[in-house]
Amino acid sequence: MSEYLAEYLGTLMLVLLGDGVVANVVLNKTKGQNSGWIVITTGWALAVAIPVFIFGPISGAHINPAVTIAMASIGNFAWSKVPGFIAAQMAGAFTGAILVWLHYRPHFDATPDKAAKLGVFCTAPAIRDWSSNMIGEFIGTFVLVFGILGVANTKMAGGISPLVVGAIVFVVGLTLGGTTGYAINPARDLGPRLAHAVLPIKDKGSSDWGYSWLPVVMPILGGLVGALIYNIIF
Amino acid sequence: MSEYLAEYLGTLMLVLLGDGVVANVVLNKTKGQNSGWIVITTGWALAVAIPVFIFGPISGAHINPAVTIAMASIGNFAWSKVPGFIAAQMAGAFTGAILVWLHYRPHFDATPDKAAKLGVFCTAPAIRDWSSNMIGEFIGTFVLVFGILGVANTKMAGGISPLVVGAIVFVVGLTLGGTTGYAINPARDLGPRLAHAVLPIKDKGSSDWGYSWLPVVMPILGGLVGALIYNIIF
Amino acid sequence: MSEYLAEYLGTLMLVLLGDGVVANVVLNKTKGQNSGWIVITTGWALAVAIPVFIFGPISGAHINPAVTIAMASIGNFAWSKVPGFIAAQMAGAFTGAILVWLHYRPHFDATPDKAAKLGVFCTAPAIRDWSSNMIGEFIGTFVLVFGILGVANTKMAGGISPLVVGAIVFVVGLTLGGTTGYAINPARDLGPRLAHAVLPIKDKGSSDWGYSWLPVVMPILGGLVGALIYNIIF
Amino acid sequence: MSEYLAEYLGTLMLVLLGDGVVANVVLNKTKGQNSGWIVITTGWALAVAIPVFIFGPISGAHINPAVTIAMASIGNFAWSKVPGFIAAQMAGAFTGAILVWLHYRPHFDATPDKAAKLGVFCTAPAIRDWSSNMIGEFIGTFVLVFGILGVANTKMAGGISPLVVGAIVFVVGLTLGGTTGYAINPARDLGPRLAHAVLPIKDKGSSDWGYSWLPVVMPILGGLVGALIYNIIF
Repeated sequence: MSEYLAEYLGTLMLVLLGDGVVANVVLNKTKGQNSGWIVITTGWALAVAIPVFIFGPISGAHINPAVTIAMASIGNFAWSKVPGFIAAQMAGAFTGAILVWLHYRPHFDATPDKAAKLGVFCTAPAIRDWSSNMIGEFIGTFVLVFGILGVANTKMAGGISPLVVGAIVFVVGLTLGGTTGYAINPARDLGPRLAHAVLPIKDKGSSDWGYSWLPVVMPILGGLVGALIYNIIF
Repeated sequence: MSEYLAEYLGTLMLVLLGDGVVANVVLNKTKGQNSGWIVITTGWALAVAIPVFIFGPISGAHINPAVTIAMASIGNFAWSKVPGFIAAQMAGAFTGAILVWLHYRPHFDATPDKAAKLGVFCTAPAIRDWSSNMIGEFIGTFVLVFGILGVANTKMAGGISPLVVGAIVFVVGLTLGGTTGYAINPARDLGPRLAHAVLPIKDKGSSDWGYSWLPVVMPILGGLVGALIYNIIF
Repeated sequence: MSEYLAEYLGTLMLVLLGDGVVANVVLNKTKGQNSGWIVITTGWALAVAIPVFIFGPISGAHINPAVTIAMASIGNFAWSKVPGFIAAQMAGAFTGAILVWLHYRPHFDATPDKAAKLGVFCTAPAIRDWSSNMIGEFIGTFVLVFGILGVANTKMAGGISPLVVGAIVFVVGLTLGGTTGYAINPARDLGPRLAHAVLPIKDKGSSDWGYSWLPVVMPILGGLVGALIYNIIF
Repeated sequence: MSEYLAEYLGTLMLVLLGDGVVANVVLNKTKGQNSGWIVITTGWALAVAIPVFIFGPISGAHINPAVTIAMASIGNFAWSKVPGFIAAQMAGAFTGAILVWLHYRPHFDATPDKAAKLGVFCTAPAIRDWSSNMIGEFIGTFVLVFGILGVANTKMAGGISPLVVGAIVFVVGLTLGGTTGYAINPARDLGPRLAHAVLPIKDKGSSDWGYSWLPVVMPILGGLVGALIYNIIF
C-alpha cells in the first residue's frame, strides 16, 4: 500500500471515530447523549491510537498536517512528500466526516441546535477570544508534537507506542482541550468543516469560516515550534 | 480443550460480562444504575479483551460469527469449521444471557420498563430508521474487523494484542455505538434475544423479532467487506 | 521479605486504596462525592493491580483467601501455607480499613448516613435476596479466579500481567458488581467489617453481621469451582 | 540535555497538564466544566506518565521534590544534586502554572468563585482539619513513593513503567485524593501557589498561605518514611 493511501485511510478512520464520538455526545436521542468529557476524550484518544497501530508501519501514521510539517522541519521527513501527505490527510478527513453524517443522519435530523451540528464536524472555542484561542491551539499542538518526538526518541514504549500516542492526545484533550476543543490538527478541522459546508444536513447553520483559519494555522505553528525546541534541547 | 469449547466458553463470558454491564446500568436499584455510556463501553471492551486473553491461544477467540466468516472469506480460517464455530458462539451467548438473568434477577423484578429489560439482552436502535441502522451496524463491524486484521498484521501489539482488540471494541462503542447500540456480533445479539424469549422474566415484553435480522445480517456483511478491503489494500 | 509479610502488606494496600475509593464516593464533602461507578471500579481495579506489581514477585500477591484456597485446591499452592496466608490477608485488610478511617475521619463525622459509613468498609447487597446474592458472589469470584488462571496460563500478558489482573477485577466490578458490590474476597469484606465493629466511628450503625458470612463463603466456593473447572477444561 | 533542564521541563509539563485539567473542570464555560473526578484523576495520571516517558531516560523524571529527597535518603540519588533538582522542579511548576493561566485566561475572567480560581493552582482540603490533612498527605505520598520503588524494583513493568507510575498517581487520586486533593508533591503545590500570588488574575482572592506549608512538609515526610520502610522490608 502506498504511504499516501495509508494517510488517507488513517485520517478517514481518525475523523470517522473522532467526529463520531462528538456526534454521540452532542446530538439528540443518541445512546451516549450528554455522556460528558470523559467519553469525548477517550473516544478521540483511541481514534488516534487505532489508526496508528494499523497504518503506522506503512506511512508513520502522521494523520495530521501539523505532524507532517513538524517532522519535515527537523529533517525527519522528506519535504517532497509533504504536499501529498497533506492532500491525503485532507481528503481522508473530508471522507470520514461524510461517513459520520451518514452514520448519525437521523440524529442530525432530530437535533435543532445548529452549533451542535457544526460541533460534530469541527471545533469552536468555548469563549471566542482570538489571542487566547490562538495560544490554546499553539500550546496543545506543541505538547502533542513534543510528546510524540519524546516518546519516539526514548524508544521506551516499543510495541505499545501507538497507545502512548493515544495517551498524549488523551491528556491534551482532558487538560488543555477545554478552551478551543483541541483541534491540534488542521486536517481534522478543515476537512470536516468543508464536509459540513457541502453536505445536505437538515436545517444546518453557518460553517463558521471566520474561525476556520485558526485551527489550521496555530496547530502548524505549535507543532513547528514544538519540534524545533525538542530538537534543540535533545 | 477443543476449539469449539473455547468459542462456547469465550462467547459465554463475553455475554455474561457484556450483558451484565447493561443490566448494571439500565435496571433499577443496581449499584451502577444510570452510570452512563463510559461504564457501558468500558464493560464491553473488557468483556471482549479478557476472553481473548484466555481463549485466544486455543481457538483465536473469534467469539463472533462476523469475525469467523470474515476470516474464512479471506482464507485465514477453514470454511469447514465455520458452522461449528457459529453454533458454539450462539450456544455460548445464549448461556451467558441466562447467567446474566440469574445474576440480576431481583433487579429485573424491580424494573417495570420492558424495553430496559430487553435492552439487557440485545440491541435496539436509538432511532428506528432501517437504512441508517443498517449502515450503522455495517460501519461498526467494518471498523471492528478491519481493525483486528490491522493489529494482527502489524504484530506491533504482541502480548497485549487482546487489550488492543478490546480497545477497538471500546472505540467502536464510544464513537459509533450511539445509534444502534453496536451489536457488531450476530451471536451477541441473537443468542441473548432467544434467551429473552424463553426465560420466565417477570412482566417481560416483546423480543422485538422484527429488528432481530438486522444485527445478524449487517455485521456479517460489514465484517466481510472490511476483511475483503483490508486484503486488497494490504 | 517473607511471603506472609507480603500478603499482609499487599492486602493492607488493597483495602486502603479500595475502601478509600468508596469513602471518596459515598462520604459527604469529599472531592469525589457522587463521582459514580466508574470511579469506584477504576479505583478497585488499580487497588489490586498496584500491589500485584509490588508483591507479586514475592508471594504471588494472592491478597485474597478465595484465590489462595483455589490455588491450593488445584495443586498450585501448598496447603500448609494456606492458614498463614489467610491470617496475613485478614490482618492486612483489618489494618488497611483502620487507615481509611484515619484518612477520611472528618468525612465520616460529616456523614449521618449509617449505611454509607458501613459501605466504606464492607459490601451490602443492593437488593437483599439470599439466593441471588449467593449466586452473585459465586459468579463474580468464579470469573475472577478463572480469569486469573487463564491469564497466567497463556503467558501472553508477560510483564503487564498485574494490569490484566486489575482489568479482570475492573470488568467484574463494572458488569457483575451491581448486585452485591462484588466482595469476591473474604478478607476484603470481613477484615474491614471487624474494623467497623471495633473503631470509634462517630454515630455508627450495625456492622450487619447477618450478611457477613455470605461474602466469605460464596467467594471461596466460587473460586474453588472456578479453579476446578479451569483445571478440567485446560 | 542536562538533568536539571529535564526536571524543569518535566515539572513544567506536569503542572501545565495537571493544573490544566483542574481549570477545565472547575472554571466556568469550559468544555469540560463539572466533568468530575474521573476527568481530574485521569488528567493528573497522564500529566505524570507522559513527562516520565519523555524525561525519564535523562533525569529519572522525579518531577517531585518528595521523590528526589526520598531517593536520596535511601542512597538511590546523590544528595549533592538535591538542591538543584528541587530548584528546577519549583521553577518548572511555577512556569507551568503561568502557562495554564495564559491558556485558560478568558475562563478565569468568567469565573467569580475565588476558591475555584485558586484551586486551579494548588490544593485546598475538602474539610480543613489539620491532623487529618497532615495524615492524608503523608499517606498519599507514602503510597506514591513506596509504589514507585516497588515497581522499579520488580522490573516487571519494563518499557511501560511510566504508565505504571501514572497508574499509581491515578489510584492515589481516585482513592485517597478526596480529602486534601492529593498534592503529594511540594513543587506541584508551592510553585503554582506562588504563580497565583504574582499573576494579575482578575478578581483573585487569597493564596491561602496559612495552608501552604502542609502540602510541602507532609509529602516530604510521607515520601521519606515510605522509602525507608520500603528499604527495610525489601
